[in-house]
Amino acid sequence: MAKRSISTHFSPVRVVLVSVRNPLNIGAAARAMSNFGFSDLRVVNPHHIAFREAQSAVGAGELLRRAQEYESLAEAVADCTLVVGTTAARHRKLVHQLRSLDEGASVVRRELSCGRVALLFGSEKRGLSNEDFSLCHWLMRIPTCEDHPSMNLGQAVAVCLYELDRGPKQRISTAGASGATAAELNRFSHLLLEALSVSGYAKPRDIALEQKIRRLVVRLNLSGRDLELWLGMLRQMLWKMESSR
Amino acid sequence: MAKRSISTHFSPVRVVLVSVRNPLNIGAAARAMSNFGFSDLRVVNPHHIAFREAQSAVGAGELLRRAQEYESLAEAVADCTLVVGTTAARHRKLVHQLRSLDEGASVVRRELSCGRVALLFGSEKRGLSNEDFSLCHWLMRIPTCEDHPSMNLGQAVAVCLYELDRGPKQRISTAGASGATAAELNRFSHLLLEALSVSGYAKPRDIALEQKIRRLVVRLNLSGRDLELWLGMLRQMLWKMESSR
Repeated sequence: MAKRSISTHFSPVRVVLVSVRNPLNIGAAARAMSNFGFSDLRVVNPHHIAFREAQSAVGAGELLRRAQEYESLAEAVADCTLVVGTTAARHRKLVHQLRSLDEGASVVRRELSCGRVALLFGSEKRGLSNEDFSLCHWLMRIPTCEDHPSMNLGQAVAVCLYELDRGPKQRISTAGASGATAAELNRFSHLLLEALSVSGYAKPRDIALEQKIRRLVVRLNLSGRDLELWLGMLRQMLWKMESSR
Repeated sequence: MAKRSISTHFSPVRVVLVSVRNPLNIGAAARAMSNFGFSDLRVVNPHHIAFREAQSAVGAGELLRRAQEYESLAEAVADCTLVVGTTAARHRKLVHQLRSLDEGASVVRRELSCGRVALLFGSEKRGLSNEDFSLCHWLMRIPTCEDHPSMNLGQAVAVCLYELDRGPKQRISTAGASGATAAELNRFSHLLLEALSVSGYAKPRDIALEQKIRRLVVRLNLSGRDLELWLGMLRQMLWKMESSR
């Protein structure tokens, strides 16, 4: 039975923290959930006083205040159609199927089209217990180094939710900028060669150098807008050099 | 100049924390680095006392103890061929190209085959400054919710490194036409600004123009060899302009 149940907000993923001791970690999990658009946080058997303090602290987000508290994991996941435990998978002989995060996340996403998924994270010291595992359909592991497999709880939650939230690629607009046309690049090469000639860098009619400069300019991969800027600078330098002859 | 330089360990990715105040966040970044197999942590202008305490604390990992401290970002990224800033991209009109994390990570992985990449994270309150951005080739954004875009620093580092570590591991080789380092680009920007000043294009101490020029130069995406050519041409033009004053 949920002891705190303020939210009736529907979210198909429940993030379930089991026996987490440090309220800062609960807060960090809540923050990552907000970042990636998850809203249903459930806490099993936390350190009660610290958890209440964290919930009522100034700056605690709405999501943390709405978090539900349970006395057992079984109650916390009762309404879920898929229960997935996370583990660093050391020192333990696992009887469960173990999926890497990216594979597991895509299975979870498929399930979400019609079901409700609980994603479980265990305590800072020991992770999830075998008892907790027994409620899981399968386990998921973030692919960390063998030498340092154990992640900070808040960071593990962030990485898992980032991966779960991964979807069809969003195009993010870039600042600018279509590429310069060949004609524009040609104007640039021309002006540059003139400046180099006036400065004494280039001898007149040095075909090899001209080609080299053209290749150099093409390799700059300029946008049309940047090219205008370079032209302006170059014209000014050319003017300065010529005005003093 | 690095004030602390214990490690000579080779790592092609530098995680650079700029003006981070809370040593717990530096520790969290270090932990995520250990989890995902990264080892080169650089800290620019941290709260010195707190940082030293964090480094010498019981339980601080080897990686954190080896972290190098710099007085400026330019020094911290001087040996890098690609400098990538992270941003939540709110409240700011960006002049840089902005890539989503998954797209950006694959560009970074390609660069790692022959170059060295700095991944920048800004302070907890303000993120990276425009001054910091002016040293970046492009920016990268973790695809968070519009309502809650700003991530906890340690969690942002974890998510970025998870994504960078994804996929087939690249073989690191130092062969091939490598990009110009940040230090070389800095020399170019400097010389160009001098030439623009002598030509009358730029007024002295025009900070906005200086940043604009730096961004423009970084966007050129120069190889080390091409950069030498540009420097030579520019020096000649500068000499010509100055010799006629």
